[in-house]
Amino acid sequence: MSKPMPEEKVFKDPVHKYIYVMDSIIWELINTKEFQRLRRIRQLGTSFYTFHGAEHSRFSHSLGVYEITRKIISQFERRQDPDWPKDQRLICLCAALLHDVGHGPFSHSIEPVFHVHHEEWTCRIILGDTEINRVLRQVSADFPGKVAAIIEKKYQPEIAVSLISSQMDADRMDYLLRDAYFTGVNYGTFDLERILRVMRPYQNKIIIKESGMHAVEDYLMARYQMYWQVYFHPVTRSSEIVLRKIFRRAKQLHQEAYAFRFMLPPLERLLAQTLTIDDYLELDESLVQLAFMQWTKEEDPILRDLCERFLHRRLFKYSILEQIDHEEIARMEQKLRERGLDPDYYMEIDFPADLPYDVYRPGQIGDKPPILILNERGQLIEISRKSDIIRSISGVQLGTHHLYYPEELLYNR
Amino acid sequence: MSKPMPEEKVFKDPVHKYIYVMDSIIWELINTKEFQRLRRIRQLGTSFYTFHGAEHSRFSHSLGVYEITRKIISQFERRQDPDWPKDQRLICLCAALLHDVGHGPFSHSIEPVFHVHHEEWTCRIILGDTEINRVLRQVSADFPGKVAAIIEKKYQPEIAVSLISSQMDADRMDYLLRDAYFTGVNYGTFDLERILRVMRPYQNKIIIKESGMHAVEDYLMARYQMYWQVYFHPVTRSSEIVLRKIFRRAKQLHQEAYAFRFMLPPLERLLAQTLTIDDYLELDESLVQLAFMQWTKEEDPILRDLCERFLHRRLFKYSILEQIDHEEIARMEQKLRERGLDPDYYMEIDFPADLPYDVYRPGQIGDKPPILILNERGQLIEISRKSDIIRSISGVQLGTHHLYYPEELLYNR
Amino acid sequence: MSKPMPEEKVFKDPVHKYIYVMDSIIWELINTKEFQRLRRIRQLGTSFYTFHGAEHSRFSHSLGVYEITRKIISQFERRQDPDWPKDQRLICLCAALLHDVGHGPFSHSIEPVFHVHHEEWTCRIILGDTEINRVLRQVSADFPGKVAAIIEKKYQPEIAVSLISSQMDADRMDYLLRDAYFTGVNYGTFDLERILRVMRPYQNKIIIKESGMHAVEDYLMARYQMYWQVYFHPVTRSSEIVLRKIFRRAKQLHQEAYAFRFMLPPLERLLAQTLTIDDYLELDESLVQLAFMQWTKEEDPILRDLCERFLHRRLFKYSILEQIDHEEIARMEQKLRERGLDPDYYMEIDFPADLPYDVYRPGQIGDKPPILILNERGQLIEISRKSDIIRSISGVQLGTHHLYYPEELLYNR
Amino acid sequence: MSKPMPEEKVFKDPVHKYIYVMDSIIWELINTKEFQRLRRIRQLGTSFYTFHGAEHSRFSHSLGVYEITRKIISQFERRQDPDWPKDQRLICLCAALLHDVGHGPFSHSIEPVFHVHHEEWTCRIILGDTEINRVLRQVSADFPGKVAAIIEKKYQPEIAVSLISSQMDADRMDYLLRDAYFTGVNYGTFDLERILRVMRPYQNKIIIKESGMHAVEDYLMARYQMYWQVYFHPVTRSSEIVLRKIFRRAKQLHQEAYAFRFMLPPLERLLAQTLTIDDYLELDESLVQLAFMQWTKEEDPILRDLCERFLHRRLFKYSILEQIDHEEIARMEQKLRERGLDPDYYMEIDFPADLPYDVYRPGQIGDKPPILILNERGQLIEISRKSDIIRSISGVQLGTHHLYYPEELLYNR
Repeated sequence: MSKPMPEEKVFKDPVHKYIYVMDSIIWELINTKEFQRLRRIRQLGTSFYTFHGAEHSRFSHSLGVYEITRKIISQFERRQDPDWPKDQRLICLCAALLHDVGHGPFSHSIEPVFHVHHEEWTCRIILGDTEINRVLRQVSADFPGKVAAIIEKKYQPEIAVSLISSQMDADRMDYLLRDAYFTGVNYGTFDLERILRVMRPYQNKIIIKESGMHAVEDYLMARYQMYWQVYFHPVTRSSEIVLRKIFRRAKQLHQEAYAFRFMLPPLERLLAQTLTIDDYLELDESLVQLAFMQWTKEEDPILRDLCERFLHRRLFKYSILEQIDHEEIARMEQKLRERGLDPDYYMEIDFPADLPYDVYRPGQIGDKPPILILNERGQLIEISRKSDIIRSISGVQLGTHHLYYPEELLYNR
Repeated sequence: MSKPMPEEKVFKDPVHKYIYVMDSIIWELINTKEFQRLRRIRQLGTSFYTFHGAEHSRFSHSLGVYEITRKIISQFERRQDPDWPKDQRLICLCAALLHDVGHGPFSHSIEPVFHVHHEEWTCRIILGDTEINRVLRQVSADFPGKVAAIIEKKYQPEIAVSLISSQMDADRMDYLLRDAYFTGVNYGTFDLERILRVMRPYQNKIIIKESGMHAVEDYLMARYQMYWQVYFHPVTRSSEIVLRKIFRRAKQLHQEAYAFRFMLPPLERLLAQTLTIDDYLELDESLVQLAFMQWTKEEDPILRDLCERFLHRRLFKYSILEQIDHEEIARMEQKLRERGLDPDYYMEIDFPADLPYDVYRPGQIGDKPPILILNERGQLIEISRKSDIIRSISGVQLGTHHLYYPEELLYNR
Repeated sequence: MSKPMPEEKVFKDPVHKYIYVMDSIIWELINTKEFQRLRRIRQLGTSFYTFHGAEHSRFSHSLGVYEITRKIISQFERRQDPDWPKDQRLICLCAALLHDVGHGPFSHSIEPVFHVHHEEWTCRIILGDTEINRVLRQVSADFPGKVAAIIEKKYQPEIAVSLISSQMDADRMDYLLRDAYFTGVNYGTFDLERILRVMRPYQNKIIIKESGMHAVEDYLMARYQMYWQVYFHPVTRSSEIVLRKIFRRAKQLHQEAYAFRFMLPPLERLLAQTLTIDDYLELDESLVQLAFMQWTKEEDPILRDLCERFLHRRLFKYSILEQIDHEEIARMEQKLRERGLDPDYYMEIDFPADLPYDVYRPGQIGDKPPILILNERGQLIEISRKSDIIRSISGVQLGTHHLYYPEELLYNR
Repeated sequence: MSKPMPEEKVFKDPVHKYIYVMDSIIWELINTKEFQRLRRIRQLGTSFYTFHGAEHSRFSHSLGVYEITRKIISQFERRQDPDWPKDQRLICLCAALLHDVGHGPFSHSIEPVFHVHHEEWTCRIILGDTEINRVLRQVSADFPGKVAAIIEKKYQPEIAVSLISSQMDADRMDYLLRDAYFTGVNYGTFDLERILRVMRPYQNKIIIKESGMHAVEDYLMARYQMYWQVYFHPVTRSSEIVLRKIFRRAKQLHQEAYAFRFMLPPLERLLAQTLTIDDYLELDESLVQLAFMQWTKEEDPILRDLCERFLHRRLFKYSILEQIDHEEIARMEQKLRERGLDPDYYMEIDFPADLPYDVYRPGQIGDKPPILILNERGQLIEISRKSDIIRSISGVQLGTHHLYYPEELLYNR
């Protein structure tokens, strides 16, 4: 069903050294315009304002998730693990490659304002009238539907889902390594080669041999450190807040029939929440950044100011909420109003845990499959029941409530 | 003259680990909107189509050049080298930081078509009505002019120029290390710490102690490998050719008074070659990519097609020119014309040496200052006269003439 | 008092890239025969039997501790921290360099059998008739005594002691990085550069700025992982047990006036516990390994067999003690006696926590100074009171009691 | 013939991350006492006196050569290359693992004095009454002989020989990477993964696909830099000269029937050149270093002094021969004689090229098989005919004649 490539192709990758493509379906998917579009969407949204190296795109991350999935499966095949359903190889590779194809620009900020969900768009792109859909249908007429089912976590056998989406899936393993590499921090590294070696297919699940427990501990510690020091960094939060307020302001102005000096059809339909697939595919960071640049010349002072803040990195400052008394907050709001600025667009209380990221918290409802250790007696044990160190971090809530505000407007400094 | 920061600031950098800012002038320059704009211009132009990791911006490179310059100078100061003019510290740091501030999007492709020069624009930005100019004038009224003089290589003492612009300057040392890191190739690494240790100010020049010759050899080998394997990579060349042809087509259409469906004022003035500083500062990769996206809906079939090629990475293929006979080339041109396509926009013969990059060729007229070794008897010797290995590579011309063409239009594959 | 070197010397070091020597006293200390002897004593004792890369010596570690100390002090000096007593620089560097000079071969195994203590021998070497003593006395007649006082932790100001000996001293920071590098494991890395930046002298202590807490967390996690996965590795423990039993057997035979076929004077005086300094300086791993090689031809079957086991890596196997019932242990002892082997030399119950290594347990009596965080209000807080993650690991006791035994003698496999 | 292991074993390795053992023959060979002995012989002889990190043993290098060979073969098998003789797998792995098993301590210095050759001893150990021989004979009675034939380069098919012994064999690839890692220099790295991907079995040879030429260039440059900056380093040469002179002196004294205060049987038979296999296996660096330590108490002043020089790193200084006139050399000899020292033991002219190491010089008689590139037309071309850069370095003779002498005895400094 899957044709091998006449000659395998390689991509040079800073994280995995090389990414190997052996199937022509994968090669053709990479060359679709919908997949190439991921080059215009950064993996870490606005984090580049905190860590200037974090300018890498979802394109390279998607290749990385594919590569880790390929390596996991090729270990299963090499060892001829009996619990691995061999006919699931190609579909897993396709789902790994495509799992992020529905991401829009700065998803974390745009999604809550316009109620779009990238998983949903991933499925629409896979199932719609797209180049990706045409490539997938070469395999079989129902293949796009199956790939979408993995993305939606409704696929059987569920082992195929858990490769891409579980507490230790190819997605997370790639982004931890990749984000650590590009930000330049020391934390995100763990021993991928060893983890690949101790993963096993077992009764329709992916489990870990007991001898690999320390490598998993290391992976979870890396994740823990990355969340608190990179993903939840307050400067990144600040830029996301400014971004969200721009979108909220533009949406508000659109509802009030404000006459934008600069507008483009896909942007207009984003504000109106009537996006088509073709619009969505035009929505990339170039469009958003260009719009912000043009909006710095708008009449509306709030939109204009917020866009300048974002483009020129004049972000909000932050303070720990508990250290500010209520009267001070009231005074800040008052000052903003005196300057003609709506505090709704200039102040925000933020708590990192509301992000789509999360630390390892096994057992919560709706959570991804936990990490299971297979001990020598053949029992499956959730890892935090065996590891003191993991137990100690899995409940920890380190977040602080921060108040974000435009310091230079409020205080003379 | 330069105020120290109340507390030094650091940037996490994947190449240098940390970048240290100790002067408030530097801190303020980084926070100008003209400098922040460099985040929207990639360091390696279209190389990300060949090496997907190469998505880093001129922002991070500029910080890196600053940091290497800072380290060199702080070595000179620590050792109290008598030939180092101590009052040149701040101006060197400013010039290092700002040397690329005039770069536009995809400079290598845009500059030859519109006759813009990024050094010239760097000076215009430094001297014009900009935030950068206002920060620099805090030092003194003539300070912007002096910084611009370093960029133009007309400054005295010339040792200040050679830190930023010579055969082994902070600019080249940063980009080799940085481009190697982000592309993920193995070649570009050399022992920066050792080179910093053997550099000396000497009679208004930067020279190298004889004991450091091997480290310099290693640096030149790294450079040699990077040029042939990264900078001159034929896939990158192909994307640059497509890009150049888009700009040439748009310029041509503009001259013919073609009615573009999508146009923006700075873009129009680029085509008309009447750019102001404010236009230029709006010209970033977001604008160029957005324009290309919109131009895929233009009426002109050549502009439309070339933009699709660029955005979706449907580049020209290439063959070694010597392996194609003249008749075959004539046949290719004929076929293109039959399809209504002008061969001027669809075929190109390319030879890598015409790029602004170059391998080490000491002694050519107009070249940057060569690398000088100070031997134990106090004589200065150009390095290729002492090192067999450098002599062997300095004359080497590895380039091949390639013919680029749209394979799928010409051959049924 | 300390002469600067006419020209600074550098050592190429895999961990710190370069080690810089600027004082001629340091240079002369490195060149003494007592310091050169450290090349013949491995840093990690028998760990090379578990991690074959771990063959590095105490020589390179000692240079590393010196280099970290030098970097810490030069940060203090550069920032002109008022609480740093500038006149302590040279003595700290000497103590850092020499702190391990009294280590003998395989100290962890030899010390408990013969009641030698390496700190004590370090002081004897510093104070005795040695080249090291003569170099130190160039500074002043009481200088050797002061250096020894730092080693013994009786020196004032105590800040000088804590650079070399505290919960986050130069010694530990070097060995974690170095042992991780040479074993090749992923765990031991942390951001040394950042830690150096947040360390401060404060009221006769070394403290950490609050903003550096995460870097310290990372350091403590690295340490935690290294202890459980490298230092306490059961294969290393097994080789240490065999080694200890060899020494115990030889001591026993010596007490029984057994006629050794091979003996050397320093070895004899080790067994008799009458070592002189000159003997001690001859006691290196060459001598121990050569003796073991010769003892494989001894008449005593236990000594002969144990030496073969050690040299040819035929170690004891291990089982978790709780999983073996008492009767089985009795049967094992019986079988050994039937073969004429004394179970005292062939079985051992081991629990890793009795080692000189330890995880971070602040507040225990006799412990090294804990890690203190200086918050913005000027309060000093022990780190595990601020950090959930550190609190969670500081009390953890992961060790398991293992039974070690010669499997192939007891079971037919 | 080769039993797979019940479960594959791994060694953690700093260079290759992991070393995988899948065959029980390999596992048993590693556990023989003759192979374990390689832990007591350093890979780089006396280089640790120049680069203190270079304390790694031939044990880890031998595992590394095995691992690279295993990876090469598994690529051939995965691609099902038709020119690869599949039945050669096990014998190649054994030969790779064992190729250095006959190395003695400090071979480069000992071999020329006593006319031993490590390849010869490797064969004697493989063929003699040893544990290694017994393991190999489990495969078949003639298997040891075949393995020895590979070592002697007399085996057919010769492709099996060239994996272990050619201009780009597993031996060289491992030692360049490993020696670079442990010394900490920047030079020795190249892209092993890419080289493995472009190697092909072809008509009983190993060749390189044309597309891999740049990776080979990089490998040869790494080698070039390592030779001149690590292997031929004059400080290492000095320590080798001192070592050689010790052996020459001891041999001379033995011939004169000098009564050594300290002697051991294998050492005596080394001096007498009547070594048996059992003697040879006892000859390790422990024995040599212990002997030198004891000989510092000998009566013979030359032996005593040279041993002290070696142990305490009081090496000879060196000067470039051309810069010293003949009269000065005569004066130096005279001074030595006046002090009762024989210049034969205290002065030496050295030229690095006489070492067993060599730079890439294709086409010389007796050379190892050169590196062949297979171009697209199916022609085999020696690489220096295609690559300017390789041609430029392959003839280069950088060596300088140095004079080594005991500076402190000749000049008052």
